[in-house]
Amino acid sequence: MLPKIASVPTRQELLDTQIAIQPLIHRTPVLRCTALEEMVGAELYFKCENFQKVGAFKMRGGASAALRLNTNEMAKGLATHSSGNHAQAVARAAQYLEVPAYIVMPEDAPKVKVKAVKGYGAEIFYCVNTPEDRLAALEKLVAKTGAHFIHPFDDWHVIAGQASCAMELIEQAEAPLDYVIPPVGGGGLTSGTALACHYFSPATKVWGAEPENVDDAYRALKSGKIEINLDNRTVADGLRTNLGDRTFQIISQHVPRILLVSESEIITAMRLIWERMKIVIEPSCAVPFAAALRYREEFAGKKVGLILTGGNVDLGKLPF
Amino acid sequence: MLPKIASVPTRQELLDTQIAIQPLIHRTPVLRCTALEEMVGAELYFKCENFQKVGAFKMRGGASAALRLNTNEMAKGLATHSSGNHAQAVARAAQYLEVPAYIVMPEDAPKVKVKAVKGYGAEIFYCVNTPEDRLAALEKLVAKTGAHFIHPFDDWHVIAGQASCAMELIEQAEAPLDYVIPPVGGGGLTSGTALACHYFSPATKVWGAEPENVDDAYRALKSGKIEINLDNRTVADGLRTNLGDRTFQIISQHVPRILLVSESEIITAMRLIWERMKIVIEPSCAVPFAAALRYREEFAGKKVGLILTGGNVDLGKLPF
Repeated sequence: MLPKIASVPTRQELLDTQIAIQPLIHRTPVLRCTALEEMVGAELYFKCENFQKVGAFKMRGGASAALRLNTNEMAKGLATHSSGNHAQAVARAAQYLEVPAYIVMPEDAPKVKVKAVKGYGAEIFYCVNTPEDRLAALEKLVAKTGAHFIHPFDDWHVIAGQASCAMELIEQAEAPLDYVIPPVGGGGLTSGTALACHYFSPATKVWGAEPENVDDAYRALKSGKIEINLDNRTVADGLRTNLGDRTFQIISQHVPRILLVSESEIITAMRLIWERMKIVIEPSCAVPFAAALRYREEFAGKKVGLILTGGNVDLGKLPF
Repeated sequence: MLPKIASVPTRQELLDTQIAIQPLIHRTPVLRCTALEEMVGAELYFKCENFQKVGAFKMRGGASAALRLNTNEMAKGLATHSSGNHAQAVARAAQYLEVPAYIVMPEDAPKVKVKAVKGYGAEIFYCVNTPEDRLAALEKLVAKTGAHFIHPFDDWHVIAGQASCAMELIEQAEAPLDYVIPPVGGGGLTSGTALACHYFSPATKVWGAEPENVDDAYRALKSGKIEINLDNRTVADGLRTNLGDRTFQIISQHVPRILLVSESEIITAMRLIWERMKIVIEPSCAVPFAAALRYREEFAGKKVGLILTGGNVDLGKLPF
């Protein structure tokens, strides 16, 4: 059992987390691609979390949170609400720990994701697909089972787990990176990336990347408070979420800039990565590369880490 | 300059070729995937030539053939006819050697492939898309320029180059492989694979895999002579070609069996590789995995190498 984390994770807490979660995750490869580097005019280090267990970086945070529970807590199991990669991560962590998992999913969740969650042995509870209904269903479930709720991003343990992705990237890049660009959704990955660079590669700047249509983090950095997305029309479906209290706290301190990209820039970037790198990535992952292309003058001649967050995409519904 | 090869390549000729072509190729990774292994009930070692330069194993054979030319021959350049990966390989080899490349392409060749060939600095000559017109255009071009024609598969140098793929796979697999399965088109890769295993891993069986609709190699093994495909309706567009004299000679000696798969099995296998391995592969590459699935009793508990030949696919025209 890992000690619990009560505030912004420390350097030592990140190191302890990285070691503890190793049995539950892959050390994913870092790929480079000459053709894409020539387009940006920079050295690009793509951290391939599409090859991560459950197909996304979420496995890191899920594993980190699950491993904090003591024996009594574990016996009651894990719970969360999610239609996506976090559900799979929690279900997979519970399977590894041989404890129950209870997942609230919207009744219109993609069948392939429902199937994957079931495949890990989790019990699924369907709800109407509104934030209120999801939360209500989850609260009812937690009250009944005593299971431990793992928040998808606004949780110190989850943030500490996501940090391991950039910690690996820092080790794997051939030279110190000038920049690391994660895509910003709820901010769990971005917070973890920011802490990892702060502690282990302080000369590396962390800039987030976000779709223009869901630019809550961009606006939050300007206003100094959490902002709400009023629009959710983006192909980058993993990035619609607003920042949480914990992720806003870390991002406002350690991430000086958020780069915005348009929907067509995201789709172009996604297609370029598929065609040139021959790998399958989710639309959300294309956002950092789209930002590197759009703001290429900023990155000329630099070493830039780009986090490809996952590869769970419906091949029947590609945007190109 | 590599010495020319006058007959079936020897062990030493394969070793010399492997070293000589290194500057022109990538040592591609070998990936495994638990989900797909569970479906077959075997250990599967996927050799990822979709990550090869120009996006396909053809770079190996093209490099091997180009490096045989002496200074006088090189000055006159390289020529071939191809609408696909071999054209890109020859163009790229010529670019590396700083000699001209002349490529005959059908006038209806995909724009993306034409663009790629042009991008390597080759000169393109368009022809009507029939075998006769292609050959006539090529002969005219060779007569005029004196360029050296590199056949896409029926060439000892090309075969020696393709062998390097299985030579790497043999080194990269954690234990001796029981089987290696290449997809069979003109037979260049299959011949090279068969020779590589014969010399460097003699306990490994090489079985080919072929679509039912273009089963010329399957029939050739039965009849003892080269057979012709009368149908070309397969999604595995790289495998429509018949065997040549040299490839038939090697395959009839070293490949005891060809496994056939249906079109729907190919498409299912392709989709599984995209979804589970998160990599982009051409339909032709899915044929060996489709065969491993269909004939899974044969492979139960075995170590099986599967060659993923390339990743140049039109994302706008996916078969699923």
